[in-house]
Amino acid sequence: MQFVPLIRTVPDFPIPGILFRDITTLIKNGEAFQDAVDSLAELFADVPVDKIAAIEARGWIFGAPLAYKLGAGFIAVRKPNKLPADTISCEYALEYGTNCLEMHRDAVEPGERVLVIDDLLATGGTARGTVGMIEELGGKVVGIGFLIELAELKGREQLNGYDVRTVLTF
Amino acid sequence: MQFVPLIRTVPDFPIPGILFRDITTLIKNGEAFQDAVDSLAELFADVPVDKIAAIEARGWIFGAPLAYKLGAGFIAVRKPNKLPADTISCEYALEYGTNCLEMHRDAVEPGERVLVIDDLLATGGTARGTVGMIEELGGKVVGIGFLIELAELKGREQLNGYDVRTVLTF
Repeated sequence: MQFVPLIRTVPDFPIPGILFRDITTLIKNGEAFQDAVDSLAELFADVPVDKIAAIEARGWIFGAPLAYKLGAGFIAVRKPNKLPADTISCEYALEYGTNCLEMHRDAVEPGERVLVIDDLLATGGTARGTVGMIEELGGKVVGIGFLIELAELKGREQLNGYDVRTVLTF
Repeated sequence: MQFVPLIRTVPDFPIPGILFRDITTLIKNGEAFQDAVDSLAELFADVPVDKIAAIEARGWIFGAPLAYKLGAGFIAVRKPNKLPADTISCEYALEYGTNCLEMHRDAVEPGERVLVIDDLLATGGTARGTVGMIEELGGKVVGIGFLIELAELKGREQLNGYDVRTVLTF
């Protein structure tokens, strides 16, 4: 399926100068949504996975169905102060600003193979921070998958040494 | 599967006096996560559905896989100022405080059958607000599903006249 025509581009959101790639117009189409999740699954069909770590919030839209499809556990990577139990955290640089992410300390067991999923690879800061938390807990990051890659922002350079795969590129 | 032993109860989160039901301990178990999504699907197996509307953020963890499984479109019900295009909004009362939700105006076409999904039914304010937005856009709310119902908060009373179904009750 051609996903690009289903993605809406919104100029100057959330701040002036940003071309926002809006996936809501893709996911409201049931066939396209299924196909997008299946495309992520196919990208990593050769990679054994115990858990999917997906980044709040849009990463969950693709990461949760992928975990469901694979029978993998789901790790909720969240914004600060959302998780109720003992957490670890990371700081990361955004395309616009900086922020922090958290994960429960009991989310990953040592040696587990974790696939990181988000909707969009921009600067790679969010994924880089997530990778660091998984490794701090002893997990093995077996891949990092995105539906969309914004190539000009060079996020792959942040994720050097990891197996980064993306469904489509702008 | 017995889901209750997999749900962690955290006292005094996010504020004193609240017993927080933490689903991260359930969803990190791949088999339990699959079974939870399948249980939601079975609850509504008799209900034809065009789209799933799921409420940010935890509702997406169950709503997105359910949409994927059913081949339904996915509607992201979001917190304010997250959606980039033309939105409608609602105010609602929380278990602790008040808040606002938004939906893209083009998320629902008139006549579409929409199933609302969230992780937990507390006071029902979030779901009530979501139902109102769907109906404002001409959609038909064919059901409202939750993994967990906190019966003592009487959220069903807020949702009177709708087909509310829940997988488990505390």
